[in-house]
Amino acid sequence: MAFKVTPWEVSGKVDYEKLRREFGAELIDEKIKNKIEKNSGKLPLFLRRNFFYSHRDLELILKDYEEGKDFFLYTGRGPSGEMHIGHLTPLIFTKWLQEVFNVNLYIQITDDEKFLVKKKNLKEIEKYAEDNIRDIAALGFNPDKTFIFRDTEFIKNSYNLILKTSKLINFSSVKGVFGFTNQSNVGLIFFPSYQIIPTFFEKKRCLIPAAIDQDPYWRIQRDIAERLGYYKASVIHSKFFPSLTGITGKMSASKQETTIYLSDDKETVKKKIIKYAFSGGQSTIEEHRKKGGNPAIDVAFQWLNILFEEDDKKINRIREEYKKGEMLTGELKTILIEKINEFLEEHNKKKEKVEKIVEKLKYSGKLAREMWNKTIY
Amino acid sequence: MAFKVTPWEVSGKVDYEKLRREFGAELIDEKIKNKIEKNSGKLPLFLRRNFFYSHRDLELILKDYEEGKDFFLYTGRGPSGEMHIGHLTPLIFTKWLQEVFNVNLYIQITDDEKFLVKKKNLKEIEKYAEDNIRDIAALGFNPDKTFIFRDTEFIKNSYNLILKTSKLINFSSVKGVFGFTNQSNVGLIFFPSYQIIPTFFEKKRCLIPAAIDQDPYWRIQRDIAERLGYYKASVIHSKFFPSLTGITGKMSASKQETTIYLSDDKETVKKKIIKYAFSGGQSTIEEHRKKGGNPAIDVAFQWLNILFEEDDKKINRIREEYKKGEMLTGELKTILIEKINEFLEEHNKKKEKVEKIVEKLKYSGKLAREMWNKTIY
Repeated sequence: MAFKVTPWEVSGKVDYEKLRREFGAELIDEKIKNKIEKNSGKLPLFLRRNFFYSHRDLELILKDYEEGKDFFLYTGRGPSGEMHIGHLTPLIFTKWLQEVFNVNLYIQITDDEKFLVKKKNLKEIEKYAEDNIRDIAALGFNPDKTFIFRDTEFIKNSYNLILKTSKLINFSSVKGVFGFTNQSNVGLIFFPSYQIIPTFFEKKRCLIPAAIDQDPYWRIQRDIAERLGYYKASVIHSKFFPSLTGITGKMSASKQETTIYLSDDKETVKKKIIKYAFSGGQSTIEEHRKKGGNPAIDVAFQWLNILFEEDDKKINRIREEYKKGEMLTGELKTILIEKINEFLEEHNKKKEKVEKIVEKLKYSGKLAREMWNKTIY
Repeated sequence: MAFKVTPWEVSGKVDYEKLRREFGAELIDEKIKNKIEKNSGKLPLFLRRNFFYSHRDLELILKDYEEGKDFFLYTGRGPSGEMHIGHLTPLIFTKWLQEVFNVNLYIQITDDEKFLVKKKNLKEIEKYAEDNIRDIAALGFNPDKTFIFRDTEFIKNSYNLILKTSKLINFSSVKGVFGFTNQSNVGLIFFPSYQIIPTFFEKKRCLIPAAIDQDPYWRIQRDIAERLGYYKASVIHSKFFPSLTGITGKMSASKQETTIYLSDDKETVKKKIIKYAFSGGQSTIEEHRKKGGNPAIDVAFQWLNILFEEDDKKINRIREEYKKGEMLTGELKTILIEKINEFLEEHNKKKEKVEKIVEKLKYSGKLAREMWNKTIY
């Protein structure tokens, strides 16, 4: 089946292995997992269950770390709407990386890009950006080692570096990797220069945890980094968090029924999961008891596996019982509904009290202050 | 003879009438000159001698003015090096317009663009930008009605408006008007969005005095302005100030012998004019006395005509005497040398004491303060 993956469109059933090979990235194999485990202790579920599955130069990051050299983390969020469950996966993984390796982290909020691609005005995008930042801050990043910035605000300090980067990127190269055409607007054609520059915020190696659709940016970064006197970025790629309605493509924030928003209340979560979560079960209870369900295409199972069921023994038990037909779709969905509602209750409690942390992450924490106090060349 | 005119290259002998017609602009004819004269008193030499010769919608500016509606002025300077005599012409004309009509003026210093097109680093461009601003300030613009800004500094306040503009410009359209190719860097492809936005600084008509090579920017502006809720820009086009070595193309700051820098001392001015100023005279005195000179191709005569000899009677006398062979090339050059040195002595005296004025024009004058205090959407 045909599939398409760009930073602005993911469609069809993605063949992740094919995509990785096309992009020329490496598989996160047992060898590299063992290396991470040696430095970090127990691996997080994102790696144990291969949701983050591909990388570029991750071994160089680990080598630097083992030799006592520091690196830094960079990830981002495009604030085109309210955040949903799927948006959290790279952020939660990034938080784990920051805690384990105790390194600086830059989180770019690409409000400019979202304005340029969406039929929304700047004020609307700004509102989403600030709300998204509260969601991100609620995850609990180190306030002195994390800097969250909106592109439209930080342009003041970053424009010179963006210019240097943009001077080395020509239309051919963005046309090739992003599929721009003559009809693409010149703002969007320029934008990759901005998404690249956080990798130059320090003269150290940069590790980027992000979904694999963002890889075109890093390919351009790796093409020009050394000419500017910086390291080629290291990247760790995730698959896409599956849409409620089926595991093809990535979850879209623009279709209500395909997502669970972080702001959804308990009843809404329950209704959406029951009504929309694509089931790998059989159409009648009798048939299900006899033939069993298919966890590989069951969205409720996948969500538990990727994000909500940390316990390996429990997820394996659920998989087996579901396969054998001992567990019904309704039961599986009930487990997920409880997990999500528990998570969201906790999350929104934190979000309510997050203002001071937001202020630190954006302006007054140690790293944020350092960033605002310099013009970057 | 073939000629080429883009914002980055002017070559060949320019046929100004053909260029104007190709661009679809209007001639500044007697009718419109009379209208200006009615409002301004005596016309400046730039208009009397047709150095500013073409326009777009200038009659709408005059109509607004006559109906008591305000307009504003916008011009700029690309700080790729030290300023020379030729760079002053649009600025001196702009100063006259500001004085006569008592309107706000924005002067954009496109340090970003010059970095993107030249083999110079940002620090070098910054140095030229600040020096150029001192030269401009020495011309004596109204410090409460003039705002001079460097793109890299004002980006903080202007980025949102640039984004809005860039969203309406696609690669096709900049490719068409600027001749960009797939090899053009993405910074330069984006830049027209920035050069356009000063025309949106006020919800009034904007009049741009500039050399005709800048017209592609205004064509794009006029294409999108009304969709953003602003007026189409009015433009008044100058010819190019001729190079010392001949009247083809425009004076280039990168070739020492083709220019008189504002920083050239008296001896240098004398030497350059004597050695390099292309002469329309004959090769021997005898022949010159007999056949006379050709003021139309004589650079010394043209410089006097365009900028340095304000007195119409005097310039006509010089033309006649030169044509008849009564005035020799050496005598003509001596008149010019004296005029230039007189001008430069005065200019550099003002430039030495310009710091306070620069500070007002950039930051603390009335208009400058207003601009820094708002984020423009």
